[in-house]
Amino acid sequence: MRTGMWLIGARGSVAVTSIVGALAVRGSFAGPPGLVTELPALRHPAIPALNDLYIGGHDSAPLCLVKKAQDLAAAGVLPAPIVQAVLPELNSLEGEVLPVPTGRHQLEVAQRAADDLRRFQERHDLDRIVVVNVSATEPLRHFDGDLGMLQEAMRAGQVLSWSSLYAHAALSAGCSYVDFTPSTGARIPALHELALENQVPYAGHDGKTGETLLKSVLAPMFAMRHLQVRSWSGINLLGGGDGATLAEPGANAAKVASKQRVLRETLGYEPEGQTRIDFVPDIGDLKTAWDLITFSGFLGTRMRLEFTWHGCDSALAAPLVLDLARLTAAAHAQGLSGPLPELAFFFKDPLGDVPHGLAAQWNLLCDWIGGWS
Amino acid sequence: MRTGMWLIGARGSVAVTSIVGALAVRGSFAGPPGLVTELPALRHPAIPALNDLYIGGHDSAPLCLVKKAQDLAAAGVLPAPIVQAVLPELNSLEGEVLPVPTGRHQLEVAQRAADDLRRFQERHDLDRIVVVNVSATEPLRHFDGDLGMLQEAMRAGQVLSWSSLYAHAALSAGCSYVDFTPSTGARIPALHELALENQVPYAGHDGKTGETLLKSVLAPMFAMRHLQVRSWSGINLLGGGDGATLAEPGANAAKVASKQRVLRETLGYEPEGQTRIDFVPDIGDLKTAWDLITFSGFLGTRMRLEFTWHGCDSALAAPLVLDLARLTAAAHAQGLSGPLPELAFFFKDPLGDVPHGLAAQWNLLCDWIGGWS
Amino acid sequence: MRTGMWLIGARGSVAVTSIVGALAVRGSFAGPPGLVTELPALRHPAIPALNDLYIGGHDSAPLCLVKKAQDLAAAGVLPAPIVQAVLPELNSLEGEVLPVPTGRHQLEVAQRAADDLRRFQERHDLDRIVVVNVSATEPLRHFDGDLGMLQEAMRAGQVLSWSSLYAHAALSAGCSYVDFTPSTGARIPALHELALENQVPYAGHDGKTGETLLKSVLAPMFAMRHLQVRSWSGINLLGGGDGATLAEPGANAAKVASKQRVLRETLGYEPEGQTRIDFVPDIGDLKTAWDLITFSGFLGTRMRLEFTWHGCDSALAAPLVLDLARLTAAAHAQGLSGPLPELAFFFKDPLGDVPHGLAAQWNLLCDWIGGWS
Amino acid sequence: MRTGMWLIGARGSVAVTSIVGALAVRGSFAGPPGLVTELPALRHPAIPALNDLYIGGHDSAPLCLVKKAQDLAAAGVLPAPIVQAVLPELNSLEGEVLPVPTGRHQLEVAQRAADDLRRFQERHDLDRIVVVNVSATEPLRHFDGDLGMLQEAMRAGQVLSWSSLYAHAALSAGCSYVDFTPSTGARIPALHELALENQVPYAGHDGKTGETLLKSVLAPMFAMRHLQVRSWSGINLLGGGDGATLAEPGANAAKVASKQRVLRETLGYEPEGQTRIDFVPDIGDLKTAWDLITFSGFLGTRMRLEFTWHGCDSALAAPLVLDLARLTAAAHAQGLSGPLPELAFFFKDPLGDVPHGLAAQWNLLCDWIGGWS
Repeated sequence: MRTGMWLIGARGSVAVTSIVGALAVRGSFAGPPGLVTELPALRHPAIPALNDLYIGGHDSAPLCLVKKAQDLAAAGVLPAPIVQAVLPELNSLEGEVLPVPTGRHQLEVAQRAADDLRRFQERHDLDRIVVVNVSATEPLRHFDGDLGMLQEAMRAGQVLSWSSLYAHAALSAGCSYVDFTPSTGARIPALHELALENQVPYAGHDGKTGETLLKSVLAPMFAMRHLQVRSWSGINLLGGGDGATLAEPGANAAKVASKQRVLRETLGYEPEGQTRIDFVPDIGDLKTAWDLITFSGFLGTRMRLEFTWHGCDSALAAPLVLDLARLTAAAHAQGLSGPLPELAFFFKDPLGDVPHGLAAQWNLLCDWIGGWS
Repeated sequence: MRTGMWLIGARGSVAVTSIVGALAVRGSFAGPPGLVTELPALRHPAIPALNDLYIGGHDSAPLCLVKKAQDLAAAGVLPAPIVQAVLPELNSLEGEVLPVPTGRHQLEVAQRAADDLRRFQERHDLDRIVVVNVSATEPLRHFDGDLGMLQEAMRAGQVLSWSSLYAHAALSAGCSYVDFTPSTGARIPALHELALENQVPYAGHDGKTGETLLKSVLAPMFAMRHLQVRSWSGINLLGGGDGATLAEPGANAAKVASKQRVLRETLGYEPEGQTRIDFVPDIGDLKTAWDLITFSGFLGTRMRLEFTWHGCDSALAAPLVLDLARLTAAAHAQGLSGPLPELAFFFKDPLGDVPHGLAAQWNLLCDWIGGWS
Repeated sequence: MRTGMWLIGARGSVAVTSIVGALAVRGSFAGPPGLVTELPALRHPAIPALNDLYIGGHDSAPLCLVKKAQDLAAAGVLPAPIVQAVLPELNSLEGEVLPVPTGRHQLEVAQRAADDLRRFQERHDLDRIVVVNVSATEPLRHFDGDLGMLQEAMRAGQVLSWSSLYAHAALSAGCSYVDFTPSTGARIPALHELALENQVPYAGHDGKTGETLLKSVLAPMFAMRHLQVRSWSGINLLGGGDGATLAEPGANAAKVASKQRVLRETLGYEPEGQTRIDFVPDIGDLKTAWDLITFSGFLGTRMRLEFTWHGCDSALAAPLVLDLARLTAAAHAQGLSGPLPELAFFFKDPLGDVPHGLAAQWNLLCDWIGGWS
Repeated sequence: MRTGMWLIGARGSVAVTSIVGALAVRGSFAGPPGLVTELPALRHPAIPALNDLYIGGHDSAPLCLVKKAQDLAAAGVLPAPIVQAVLPELNSLEGEVLPVPTGRHQLEVAQRAADDLRRFQERHDLDRIVVVNVSATEPLRHFDGDLGMLQEAMRAGQVLSWSSLYAHAALSAGCSYVDFTPSTGARIPALHELALENQVPYAGHDGKTGETLLKSVLAPMFAMRHLQVRSWSGINLLGGGDGATLAEPGANAAKVASKQRVLRETLGYEPEGQTRIDFVPDIGDLKTAWDLITFSGFLGTRMRLEFTWHGCDSALAAPLVLDLARLTAAAHAQGLSGPLPELAFFFKDPLGDVPHGLAAQWNLLCDWIGGWS
């Protein structure tokens, strides 16, 4: 099962951490922790091995993979000895990361991106490719018409955000598509139509790595114990590229909406309070999130929970990118198409009408894989 | 379904909060939050209503219920208007709390306690009684022989801790027994024998109210994400009666062992670190627990989670006492006997070979009740 | 030394807590803690006793003092027994709180407010009055001309914010003026001119009660140890009236600027990060502030400090209002006029070129009082 | 002013960090942050420059300095490039670290240690030497007799702990002595006698690096604001060598006593609560301390402060070792002898009747240096 993993934003922190990690685990320079698909409970012959992954991608940044990996090592995000160990292999992947295609209009750009995918598939004789978007968060941008109307509009001007343009490229080339960001991606009726037409699956949105991961276990705890969550306020302090992007109001709004959804869905009501994201360059990639939850219990007694999470976003996100690529490719191989709600476990803002508590999402995932041939 | 709830330690903070709470919810002076058995997911006709509960108990303290409730209100643990509202009913229960029986030897004491239970049953024409131990934590004390040997030994001297003596009284009187403390209770082979002989169920141990409740959702989160928990250290600062008891080394050891079990069981290994309990009178009943968890993820990246829990132990424990009494009585009515592992959701140190993650315990509980006639 | 304390915003939380507190300490229903002027180090015969304070004020709200005090007791801000104990005296003060004067133009309003002050002085045969602004925070509003130009402009339209209008009233009536808020108050050249002309002192700005109090001891600690503060980020979650006001952008900006000044002044540079204020009604008056400070030490080693402050703003502010009234009246009696930089200890954003570290401010205060006749 | 800095425990983490740091700052591989003596406010011509320091020491460990420095770099305590940069110089110091002397009795050991100091002085033509104890914490051990009795007792058996034995060696060789640990050191009447006899100064105890540093600014803040501290509880989680030592009950008791003193001294009373030290190997040298302070203010209102300190003990301690060596040598050169209470700023448990608030200690230090010729 030769499987392509094509990364949109292939030279970003998350992508490079994923690539270095895949090479490191493959070469036994690092162990499996962090990779959900390496847990005994999730092993299944239909899931391609890390050794079966062929990696490529698009990126507009001129920085080479090796330099980016060394920068991440210098910043303490990647262990320097691991970067050193995979350097030759990493270097050999430079040619697989292509510049973002250009064209006279969006449809042409999407077609050229799809051509890149087809050439990648031929070059490595791949059974299938999964395209994973790990580029910077964009403001949300919708389009309401059907596929014909969409393609006509793409020919005429700028109607899609980049994430959706790449989703179009992937789905039209017969590749599955995963959106690891809160951007619009494939969440457009015309792209859903395209996915069904080409019988490819898609998944998203917004990898659940830190504060929201905690929310997805803590909120169900309050619900199961019949405790009333009165307010849930949080602040995320982060530096690095993602932090700078999220300081931009449009992207910030997309992200914050994605982060709050879990409370409404697991509690059945929306407590007071909001989630803030502040850019603090000094903090770098080791994000700090602080949350205060006020709640009341029996006879109205008021209580509080506070937590501080110091998590390295790239280290939390990167293995999930590999997990999602492997599971989506397996689903594709199983003949599934359209949205994959069973991957809700991995996302802040999952597709479909699914549970939002982590344990229920885990059960859904296990049951789903358990039913594969 | 007239059901007796007989509390060992009936004048303690947890017991009085339970009693006041039951009266308050019954009288609509307070809502159902905190009561798990009032969640739609757990409603079942076999579960006795709060209105069907008849309350009594044993306690060696001379303090009357009304005075204790007023003290709890003054300390901010119970809302003063609620105490005021239930005062007449609370006062009418004073006669139902009996002094701890005495006798020439432990067997006689246990028999007299059983007689108290039988008279309570007759007086109120009860279908059944559930005895709930909410007295102070004791050092663990085991006994290895069979029931005959136990009773002989009880006749000869002090072989059982109080919790086990009351378990003997309950089970021999045909009443079910719940241990809400980490004390030994019914966890003695001879008492198990007695429960089976008399066809009554028993449950325990140690109500899961605060820090351990959090552990039971956070530890599975780390496991499901394949993150390695390297250390888990915690400190519990608490005042009030329970705090003073737990400053005593024997009781402290019983409690700490109970609190750490969840990590070993859900992670499959024991991380570094320990849980401490310190008595700080000024903090009173609003316990503060602080935990630091260090963990590593993909490529060995080191990360941290800290939380602070400010929870009112009585307010967290009291509704669970009512839940356990109702569910154990229902199980008894369903004809179940022996240990009830399906109640693991409520306990730090549950009986039987059960899941220790909260969500799995919740599913176990729901499935169990769902199967009742 | 009969001293009037005239509160602008006399029916607000801070004012009513000050009044109830003054009555309670006077009547020995409460001890002196919280009152800096009751510390042995600060006692001086020139400082009027609590018994010498005569209380009055302006407020536009129709709510009576007794009702407000009872509301604060119900919200857990004031102890109910203390409110109960001072009720008769509190009730007798209702007539001393006057509605906000009206007039054809701002100068007339200010003159009528000054008339209210003069009548208050006569009614109680007061030696002097100190006016303290504890009303809601306003956006900053400056005026550059001299006193003549100001009064002409006041006659023509709305040139001053309310805090400055009241400062005008106070200073023109020969009363000293203290601004406990970040509003403009007396910080206008023409009002400074008026203060000098009438030989009255004034003080401000913005009572230092919580997060900034901590900053004023922690920032000097980093400086004295030659540790580089790299970022200082904070979030304040608060409900109550002040919280709602501060959610308004103009007031928020005034407050945030006031809160950050201490870092620049004590460190000599401005670290990354910002201070946020979020309104969370459920949290009420018991504000929670969380700060994360990242710093580097010897050889560039990176370290962190986090703190969470759960402080009751009214309880922290109210005694300072009494302290400031007493000290400003004493300074007035000592013949001082113009700004009183020696009161920097009490303010986030003090007047004059003063130290911003709390200990240095304390020494300045002690030395100042020590030099009084 | 050629000054020797002789380290007891010269191959430990703190010592090696001090040495690497001195070499790094000297060579401009690192800046001055962390070094208090490099602050403009403390510069004085009497203080020897870093370039004037000649480094040697005693240690029983066989590990060489270079290896230890590389280990600290691998553990993330020292920056690898800095260690690399100073490697040649560090290597040249290996010969200056001598094994712990042996002898037939303690007096002979002390004399041989003194001989080592004299030879070091001659070898480098030093004006004076300051001996700094940075070895592992020992249980406290006192001796009540005079110098003659002490030396007789030393000849007869084991009467002194190592820290005191080294203090004897230093003082008898005319070297000043600084104890950076909570061990007994020079705090023995007979050693005080020896210091006065030989006209050398001594200083101590227990470098104030983390949690206690915070206490020394926070406790005065509460005192200055007349807020009653009701409880102050803390836990220190640390790995590394010091952590293991402090898990030993005797050393732990010495340390904990040293840590609590600041509260009693600055508040004037002792709040409830205790300070715990737990050994968690995974945490390594980046210690985490968590403290909860409960306090009450005006009208008895209850409030709380929590803080978490993630500090690298070696990085905090090492520059203070250099500061203390330079300042003690300068004091010696100024002709001072006996205890140096003016160095209280640097210690948890300072000598003499001194202020315990950090700001007051800072003023004492500045005034002291300001008075030097």
